[in-house]
Amino acid sequence: MEIEKIVKLVKDQLEQYNKKDQLEQCDEKKIPIEASGRHIHLSYEDIENLFGKGYDLKQKKELSQPGQFACEERVRIIGPKGVIENVIILGPARAKSQVEISLTDCRKLGIKPFIKNSGDILGTAGIIVTNKDKTIILNQGAIIAKNHIHMNSEEARRLDVRDKQKVKVKIHSERPIIFEEVLIRVNDSFRLSMHIDYDEANACSLNKNSYGKIV
Amino acid sequence: MEIEKIVKLVKDQLEQYNKKDQLEQCDEKKIPIEASGRHIHLSYEDIENLFGKGYDLKQKKELSQPGQFACEERVRIIGPKGVIENVIILGPARAKSQVEISLTDCRKLGIKPFIKNSGDILGTAGIIVTNKDKTIILNQGAIIAKNHIHMNSEEARRLDVRDKQKVKVKIHSERPIIFEEVLIRVNDSFRLSMHIDYDEANACSLNKNSYGKIV
Repeated sequence: MEIEKIVKLVKDQLEQYNKKDQLEQCDEKKIPIEASGRHIHLSYEDIENLFGKGYDLKQKKELSQPGQFACEERVRIIGPKGVIENVIILGPARAKSQVEISLTDCRKLGIKPFIKNSGDILGTAGIIVTNKDKTIILNQGAIIAKNHIHMNSEEARRLDVRDKQKVKVKIHSERPIIFEEVLIRVNDSFRLSMHIDYDEANACSLNKNSYGKIV
Repeated sequence: MEIEKIVKLVKDQLEQYNKKDQLEQCDEKKIPIEASGRHIHLSYEDIENLFGKGYDLKQKKELSQPGQFACEERVRIIGPKGVIENVIILGPARAKSQVEISLTDCRKLGIKPFIKNSGDILGTAGIIVTNKDKTIILNQGAIIAKNHIHMNSEEARRLDVRDKQKVKVKIHSERPIIFEEVLIRVNDSFRLSMHIDYDEANACSLNKNSYGKIV
């Protein structure tokens, strides 16, 4: 009888531990979601064209991805049908300038929407960028960035995914939706974060309690 | 040998029929998707308050749901932070006035977003509605309409769903997403159509080739 009691106690405790493990494992699979507002990445050449020779962008705020930052400077973007003011510049400078906007923005500007992975700008929409009296014309580079998840290799192991894989991610929020074909981007300079644009954030009513899970 | 040939012929034909059946069944399960722009439904009382005693709204265009129509008249809606002009009125008059807007609109207007089923307006955000010099103050009724599917009972049978059921719907488009918790609304005056708002339409890049399927 005494032994039976002990066996039961041990069993109960083991069950508790298992439950705790499951919970922790479950939490470990939560993916933080960030809504990316419209922004622009500029090449060194275009920074000089817009701000003058040898100009250095002023870092204002660090972003979730290490080394990336928002700048103090803002620019205006212009399409055939509309203008958007105060577009934030993200640094550091890139090889090619790229404007990341939403489908809502494309409609307002009157430019054709191209849904692309960052960097894949060949043949995408052109756009005009100005800073006061200085103007550059980008013949291509205005894109709607496909949603994606940044992570390092340790996080990739934990989530059991690999670089360039496409996954489905359920957003837990007031308006739950599942994004299909979400691109995994693994790099040891990254930190776990899923990036979606404002249209997507509004569609799932993203707020600070929302998170994603690969399904 | 002759018999074997005949058996094979019959088998092949049966297979063809089965494939055709599957295809047709497949197409029969496609759900047309409509993006609902922001709009307002007005009560008789509020129509008179905004347009004068005994005023009849002018029907401009029939909508996909039989009996529903867009009106010629437009109103302005005003929140603490912003104004939206040219908001379309949908007829006929309803028991209570209701403004259906997107989360993007809520942000612009500065009003709290309430994601609700149509008609469920108790305790939702207030809003001001004007037509020229005439103004009404709605103490509640500004909502973000939850996505839903209208259908008649024949269509409900075909799709194997029932009134008030919640389903998951995959949108087939350039940016495929799955909406969870989509409300089924069955009424024999309805015609099969899923209604989503502009944030949701932009999030899945809805165009004329897009369609939904219950998954």
